[in-house]
Amino acid sequence: MKPIRHLLSSPATLRLRSGLAPRQTRPAAVLCRRNLSASSKLCAFQPLKPQNPKAGAMSSSATTLKGQPLDKVVLDAMLRRRMFYTPSFEIYGGVGGLYDYGPPGCALQANIVDLWRKHFVLEEDMLEVDCTALTPHDVLKTSGHVDKFADWMCKDPKNGEILRADHFVEAILEARLKGDKEARGQKVEEKEVDPKKKKKAKSAAAVKLDDAVVQEYEEVLAKIDNYGGPELGELIKKYDLKNPETGVLPSEPVAFNLMFQTSIGPSSNLPGYLRPETAQGQFLNFAKLLEFNQSQMPFASASIGKSYRNEISPRAGLLRVREFLMAEIEHFVDPEGGKKHSRFHEVEDVELVLLDRHVQLSGKTETKKMTIGQAVKDGVVDNETLGYFLARIHLFMKRIGVDLSKMRFRQHMANEMAHYACDCWDAELLTSTGWVECVGCADRSAYDLTVHAKKTGAPLVVRERLDEPKVIEEWQIDIQKKKFGPLFKKDAKTVETALEATSQEQREKLAKELTETGKIVLDVDGLADGKATIDKDSVAIEFRKRVENTREFTPNVIEPSFGIGRILYSLIEHNYWTRASDGGDESRGVLSFPPTVAPTKVLLVPLSSNPQFKPAVKALSQKLRSLGVSSRVDDSSASIGKRYSRNDELGTPLGITVDFQTLQDGSITLRDRDSTTQVRAEESKILDAIKSLVDGSKNWETVASELPKFEGQEVEVVAR
Amino acid sequence: MKPIRHLLSSPATLRLRSGLAPRQTRPAAVLCRRNLSASSKLCAFQPLKPQNPKAGAMSSSATTLKGQPLDKVVLDAMLRRRMFYTPSFEIYGGVGGLYDYGPPGCALQANIVDLWRKHFVLEEDMLEVDCTALTPHDVLKTSGHVDKFADWMCKDPKNGEILRADHFVEAILEARLKGDKEARGQKVEEKEVDPKKKKKAKSAAAVKLDDAVVQEYEEVLAKIDNYGGPELGELIKKYDLKNPETGVLPSEPVAFNLMFQTSIGPSSNLPGYLRPETAQGQFLNFAKLLEFNQSQMPFASASIGKSYRNEISPRAGLLRVREFLMAEIEHFVDPEGGKKHSRFHEVEDVELVLLDRHVQLSGKTETKKMTIGQAVKDGVVDNETLGYFLARIHLFMKRIGVDLSKMRFRQHMANEMAHYACDCWDAELLTSTGWVECVGCADRSAYDLTVHAKKTGAPLVVRERLDEPKVIEEWQIDIQKKKFGPLFKKDAKTVETALEATSQEQREKLAKELTETGKIVLDVDGLADGKATIDKDSVAIEFRKRVENTREFTPNVIEPSFGIGRILYSLIEHNYWTRASDGGDESRGVLSFPPTVAPTKVLLVPLSSNPQFKPAVKALSQKLRSLGVSSRVDDSSASIGKRYSRNDELGTPLGITVDFQTLQDGSITLRDRDSTTQVRAEESKILDAIKSLVDGSKNWETVASELPKFEGQEVEVVAR
Repeated sequence: MKPIRHLLSSPATLRLRSGLAPRQTRPAAVLCRRNLSASSKLCAFQPLKPQNPKAGAMSSSATTLKGQPLDKVVLDAMLRRRMFYTPSFEIYGGVGGLYDYGPPGCALQANIVDLWRKHFVLEEDMLEVDCTALTPHDVLKTSGHVDKFADWMCKDPKNGEILRADHFVEAILEARLKGDKEARGQKVEEKEVDPKKKKKAKSAAAVKLDDAVVQEYEEVLAKIDNYGGPELGELIKKYDLKNPETGVLPSEPVAFNLMFQTSIGPSSNLPGYLRPETAQGQFLNFAKLLEFNQSQMPFASASIGKSYRNEISPRAGLLRVREFLMAEIEHFVDPEGGKKHSRFHEVEDVELVLLDRHVQLSGKTETKKMTIGQAVKDGVVDNETLGYFLARIHLFMKRIGVDLSKMRFRQHMANEMAHYACDCWDAELLTSTGWVECVGCADRSAYDLTVHAKKTGAPLVVRERLDEPKVIEEWQIDIQKKKFGPLFKKDAKTVETALEATSQEQREKLAKELTETGKIVLDVDGLADGKATIDKDSVAIEFRKRVENTREFTPNVIEPSFGIGRILYSLIEHNYWTRASDGGDESRGVLSFPPTVAPTKVLLVPLSSNPQFKPAVKALSQKLRSLGVSSRVDDSSASIGKRYSRNDELGTPLGITVDFQTLQDGSITLRDRDSTTQVRAEESKILDAIKSLVDGSKNWETVASELPKFEGQEVEVVAR
Repeated sequence: MKPIRHLLSSPATLRLRSGLAPRQTRPAAVLCRRNLSASSKLCAFQPLKPQNPKAGAMSSSATTLKGQPLDKVVLDAMLRRRMFYTPSFEIYGGVGGLYDYGPPGCALQANIVDLWRKHFVLEEDMLEVDCTALTPHDVLKTSGHVDKFADWMCKDPKNGEILRADHFVEAILEARLKGDKEARGQKVEEKEVDPKKKKKAKSAAAVKLDDAVVQEYEEVLAKIDNYGGPELGELIKKYDLKNPETGVLPSEPVAFNLMFQTSIGPSSNLPGYLRPETAQGQFLNFAKLLEFNQSQMPFASASIGKSYRNEISPRAGLLRVREFLMAEIEHFVDPEGGKKHSRFHEVEDVELVLLDRHVQLSGKTETKKMTIGQAVKDGVVDNETLGYFLARIHLFMKRIGVDLSKMRFRQHMANEMAHYACDCWDAELLTSTGWVECVGCADRSAYDLTVHAKKTGAPLVVRERLDEPKVIEEWQIDIQKKKFGPLFKKDAKTVETALEATSQEQREKLAKELTETGKIVLDVDGLADGKATIDKDSVAIEFRKRVENTREFTPNVIEPSFGIGRILYSLIEHNYWTRASDGGDESRGVLSFPPTVAPTKVLLVPLSSNPQFKPAVKALSQKLRSLGVSSRVDDSSASIGKRYSRNDELGTPLGITVDFQTLQDGSITLRDRDSTTQVRAEESKILDAIKSLVDGSKNWETVASELPKFEGQEVEVVAR
């Protein structure tokens, strides 16, 4: 029995096993990559597999920023009420996995993206591109997505319900285990069960199982992400897993490709898909980007845009959606010379929390804190370039306000990576649904450029002038075009390609054959009889010297890939708390976003809806705008306390009150969202303070020490 | 003969008629709206019709910023070379109507969007939303897109070629007219012919036509955008329009819906489309947005995102694409009270160039310059809110660097607008392919909210407390639920809805019927026999007073809708010129973007690739970054002149040279892209100047007057 099984009875683990966590902890891009591995399996959600015992031990009950137990139901209600996001097309009944961002969600997203662009693109002169989401079939066929980007699904033959095979097996077995627990009189945490599964779970009677059966079920559950379609079908039959809705066995699992298909153009001749990742567009433009970069290596391209995955039954809010915003970097690097990075020294002292593959393979989840310099030196992280980006990701997460005590970098285990990848780390954030993979950072080697170059014949390579010319002795083929062409006519190109593709060993043999027989016979795919006979008038094969002045190579790609929606949601959880922690009202939620990402920076509150206040509020609003600080006026009739409270929920860090004294002496109060303390000073001083707070050059403590405290308490103000 | 026909023989008009101009001068969103008019026609490209004689007279040969003739071929080559944009999937052969933006295009787009957000969203506290592009069928069925968002196409029965019917008829008739001209020995402008049509045009022999036939063809061409499918089919038969490729007549035109279709979810039960505009998502969220806005009216939502149209055969570069970025505002306003706008006074003195519908109907294209205040006062523009947005659009265009002498606002003619719209103006920009509609600004009335509310039952309305309660006397229906429910069982809701939907007249009759017969018989759609019999125990109908304390209304929508790609392309043309105008090299192109939208603000050029310069360049780069100014280093081995020239083509407004003197005394030179003049001063002064130039507080003339001129000329520098 693997270590993780020991944990299965604890509520925290139960939630992780029974709910959505395990299979949603992987951002689309990463999934996609791994899914295209040499493994014959169809894939999307194998991940977070039993070899990876990480989740269980780490994610004890989720907490707020202040360490309170996090009530996800309350938080979700607040996010809906404040329109951070909302189900798309809700008045039409909604569509699973599609969400619209409302004003605060939209601003939060824009601010995260803006910081991302500054932190990565501008900081490193990356070449940003904006490629289309519509993608023709051939491109995704070459990349492997058409064949392998799929999940297993089965159908209930009675009511036609579509079931994701692994989810279905999991739900029924879990329901039986739950029934067993009830029969044994053990406590079952209702709240932890996925609402959608609840019905099925509840319908299972409280039946005690044999101990051996319990153990067998638990072992199946632990390996659930490893089963392919046929194996899931076997399990359904073996354990007689009937759909509780209908009492019948679902059909044999079939592969369902997760890409949205469409047709481009008026005839249906050009099948296409919505891209499942932004990466392919960047690879296809490699040659142009290299030229744009004046052929200098290394360089990176970057792209921010929507990607699409037709999930079978998404139900994890923003963590698993069918249309999502990604930000991806493709850093192209020479595979020779150890993939050094010229700016590595700038980050080598950054400390990261690492969960390496060896620890995971030993069934543990203990993380190590170490500098990235040390990690690369010790070989924990494969190379400097990969290490550089891990550190940069860490600094980005810190900058946007992620709780670093809830972040770790988890290394993929060898069998978890795509066959071409040499190392891969995920930045994971701890949320109420467990560790969520928000950024994948993989070394994709030369895979993508190679397959596209092979398919299209485009030279997706770098040519570098050698400081010292290289002399090579080798077998070379000379084609006598004048004879060769007429000999093969329309097949000439095919035969030539086959000739050029021969290895040195083959050429040596062919040269001998040519000398001895006056002709060679070559296997050529695509010819009628599969063979071409070439005489010595049409071809010569000689061993001779060649001087190389340039070196040609296909760059490797280091790819940091960000799921913006997942980062956004995790960031919300990390910054959420309620006033109960200060002895206040539990119903008063707060989102303590740093000013840089906060949707709105300043709330402007006139004491009342008295029109006297309007001019002062408007003037302030315009001054803030000219400072580049976004503000919002709330002149509704609600009490000041209520208005501040509403904006605490929106994460607005600062509040200005305009009252009667403002009209007399021009002074205004400034309120800090987190402490609810206030200062009062003349307008110019307050505006300076706001500027410093928003650009991060001062914190509230400093401002509060510099300006007179405002003693009128919030409750008093409300009472006026 | 209509006035426009007189113009047909001039080259400028020929270009407009023969090329892509007429049908590309309409941004997708606007098209879409108009296409959904009460008119039974299928639509997309009816626009720019003969009643609208505008284009001909205005667009004489296109010119650069400096008034030089604009060579579009040269410009396009430059834009490709500098990777402003590039055909998507080019190494796979490309896909029509899909383009990727390279680094400068991407930065230019991001800067335009950023200014748009500041100018509109932040300035007016608009509620920005980000809705999904994936849209279920029902939504677009209700909005009318499923039924009417289509073009006419026909097929060549011999080779299967798909032809856009109106384009085909146009191309063949134009080819015949061209043949006629050649036969008459008249000059034909080769360059003006759409390359794709060239082949067909060329294949027509130089045959002289009867004068009457020429006139008939010209009249057909003038009305080409007005024909529906059956009429186009008639024309093909009447004039025996054979496809020159095959020599056969194409098939009867059929409607082709322009939306990309897909399936959402694993079963194909939920057909969906990629949205053709961002507006629908905003309408569907209306109730939530109103609540978010604390029920205050008026307010606006805004959205920036990709939309999709499956064009039949797009070939106009960025001006007609299948995937494009839109920025749309939906301003919700009370239809009562004349649609005033509280900030109208701020813009009333803004002067606009207007081409109103009366001028167009009289067959002229003379524009009037007038203040928007006057235009609204005179009734030229329907209302203040619409006028306010026209002025704001004007100011935005000015801010991003549009050549205002190449901009006009064209009013839609009555039959050009959707039936529900009460006024609509397009901001058009003059480019080498004629006037291009880049922004549509329509008053959509209450159409969209009404149809969605009707379909879903969602109350997409505003409820306003009345200052004085209103007393209404009317026939009211009281349902006795206890009797009514059991009477109709599952149909109860249907019958109740039908009852509630009755008019006052009907109710009066029903009341009589009920009194006289003790029951009523009501037509109810959806019941087995289409009728419901209700007795007096289940329902009462009485004439009595009701006091209304609130007023309920469906807001009207003013919609400014921006095609970002079209604006971007037009902006490029407006800011393009070559050094030939200064007596320099014609091959040296310049894009004189204002610093605010320029992709990169500062080019950093070390005198040579000598490593001595590296530290100084790096330090400068970091200082600029901390000032929030994007810069790019060019330390390639090209001459300084060449490096500057390259960046003139990229539109980089400023350049800094680091030379040996810099290493000695810390002074650097600053070069102005447009004048190529330079100043030299100590670093801090140059950085201050850059900051002022980039934020727009100073122009180059001021900076040049304040700092010492650098006399080392560019050529000298090159020569060193």
